[in-house]
Amino acid sequence: MALPSGLEITKEVLDAEIKAFFDLAPPLKNSDDVSQKLEAFVKTNSLLSGTGGARRVVCVTSGGTTVPLEQRCVRYIDNFSSGHRGAASTEYFLKAGYAVIFLHRRGTCQPYCRSLPDDPLLECLEIVDESNIQVHQFHSQAVRSAITKTHAAVAEGLLLKLPFTTIFEYLQMLQMVAFTIKSIGPHAVFYLAAAVSDFYVPWKSMAEHKIQSGSGPLDMRLVQVPKMLLVLRKDWAPMAFCISFKLETDSKILLEKADMALRKYKMHMVVANELSSRKEEVVVVTSNEKILVRQNKSLGVDDVESALIELLVERHAVYVENSDHLTGQQNSSLSG
Amino acid sequence: MALPSGLEITKEVLDAEIKAFFDLAPPLKNSDDVSQKLEAFVKTNSLLSGTGGARRVVCVTSGGTTVPLEQRCVRYIDNFSSGHRGAASTEYFLKAGYAVIFLHRRGTCQPYCRSLPDDPLLECLEIVDESNIQVHQFHSQAVRSAITKTHAAVAEGLLLKLPFTTIFEYLQMLQMVAFTIKSIGPHAVFYLAAAVSDFYVPWKSMAEHKIQSGSGPLDMRLVQVPKMLLVLRKDWAPMAFCISFKLETDSKILLEKADMALRKYKMHMVVANELSSRKEEVVVVTSNEKILVRQNKSLGVDDVESALIELLVERHAVYVENSDHLTGQQNSSLSG
Repeated sequence: MALPSGLEITKEVLDAEIKAFFDLAPPLKNSDDVSQKLEAFVKTNSLLSGTGGARRVVCVTSGGTTVPLEQRCVRYIDNFSSGHRGAASTEYFLKAGYAVIFLHRRGTCQPYCRSLPDDPLLECLEIVDESNIQVHQFHSQAVRSAITKTHAAVAEGLLLKLPFTTIFEYLQMLQMVAFTIKSIGPHAVFYLAAAVSDFYVPWKSMAEHKIQSGSGPLDMRLVQVPKMLLVLRKDWAPMAFCISFKLETDSKILLEKADMALRKYKMHMVVANELSSRKEEVVVVTSNEKILVRQNKSLGVDDVESALIELLVERHAVYVENSDHLTGQQNSSLSG
Repeated sequence: MALPSGLEITKEVLDAEIKAFFDLAPPLKNSDDVSQKLEAFVKTNSLLSGTGGARRVVCVTSGGTTVPLEQRCVRYIDNFSSGHRGAASTEYFLKAGYAVIFLHRRGTCQPYCRSLPDDPLLECLEIVDESNIQVHQFHSQAVRSAITKTHAAVAEGLLLKLPFTTIFEYLQMLQMVAFTIKSIGPHAVFYLAAAVSDFYVPWKSMAEHKIQSGSGPLDMRLVQVPKMLLVLRKDWAPMAFCISFKLETDSKILLEKADMALRKYKMHMVVANELSSRKEEVVVVTSNEKILVRQNKSLGVDDVESALIELLVERHAVYVENSDHLTGQQNSSLSG
């Protein structure tokens, strides 16, 4: 589907917009630390031999980003997301043998913690006597499982958790992940489940102090966040397998929007989900298919992510094989 | 200080605005449950004899409210607040013998949990063997204290936790608290530490579906949330002792703003705090004083709330005494 001309901006304009976004963004605080962790994580996992070579690494993004409305941030716009999908998907990617970079909104749902109550420490533990604290019988299995599995995944070097809050932090870290993960070519996956702000207030045009509630209404102008997906695909990590998400509340426009995102940003797959039914079913949109994925209650699985990740892992395997084959052909033609 | 005429709206207009706000707000989901809990809590504590009569009850509000931008909420504006001050203050009110209604933003800092890490369950616990989970030595005291003190306060009927998320939920619940707590007259305190949105999008004028990020910037018009403080003081619970907070990032306008709030909303006290120094010091503004309250490091107290609540409890005691005296005079003149 060709997009109407005039709506598209050129790659040069987009590149300039993205450069301006990063140049004007407040600098990432723990940038060196994140960078070191990322490099060590990707290096270790690329040296380990998984099935037929390096271990596959997926960057799962999860939770919503915030957009500050004031520089000394009191008010901000937030995108709602519990992070449930990202956390569940991380579990299934780990189960499938992937190493996972879990780029998540601070405070959102963590892998293996989905069945814990909201305030787990106060609700799951009880004091037995002066020297003993124990886990309530009711939560015992969930707590044990959360701790054992999380600690194991981190200890084995298979899970790297990176938290963000603002849109500025998120995009800066996503770029760092891409630059690092680029080295493993088609073995890298981006699974972009985070709810990323479409609009923001540029840092320099932001009110320094708290906006005053004098008399009358508040008018705000937000500008569009430059679309980074295309640049992620083209420049940041061109060989990585990319899956993005499209969430809508209006099912009538959902598939069309997902299809548009697939073409516009050159994604390998777009997962279309509607707000009200997103926990039961999603539609995976590729260049030539629309695959309905539903939770399989008859198998006792109460989430849709199990079947979704199974499908994605299959498709990624084919992608890796084709890429290897292509590289092999190139190598033999080079050596021939 | 007289306010410039023309900026003030009449009580009738305000009442109409507030009625419209509540009429058009989405109904509170667990309204009956909240109402029952509140009535039982206030009744029990008003029957218990504290110092010289009924136990004092304080409603501590804590954390920020959200303003949905879409009816099927994907995006919203949030007011930043960790809820640290509300949680700390609740601990000191309980210590001073008050019963506390902790009206807090879901997921913010809880009383007695201030020294726990962000993700307490995963960070504080470790698996010893198949049947035992234990608390890390390092966090042992903090975890024990959090659980013991919280469970004790709840079990003794001294702590009622009520969570909110949106501005609609917050104001509906605040009104319910006020209507219930009104029965104990001057023994009731409102300690309004929550960061409440000044602007909102009226539910009926809100986009039903997710706002589309087509081309161009997003312009938004937010209207002012009707100022409920004055009505809380005048109508909802006229005998309650009311303390509100004023947070600014600009210290130059802070005291003037606090003073204005005190007069405009007939508060008994306004706690003025500046974003950058709010953990070390605040200024308590009354009709004839400005009292600087600082954390007392020499006494090994690392928060400002300890001294702040001590001051407020003293002033509330005087207020109760004066009210009782007044009531006594009225009674004797009635009987005379």
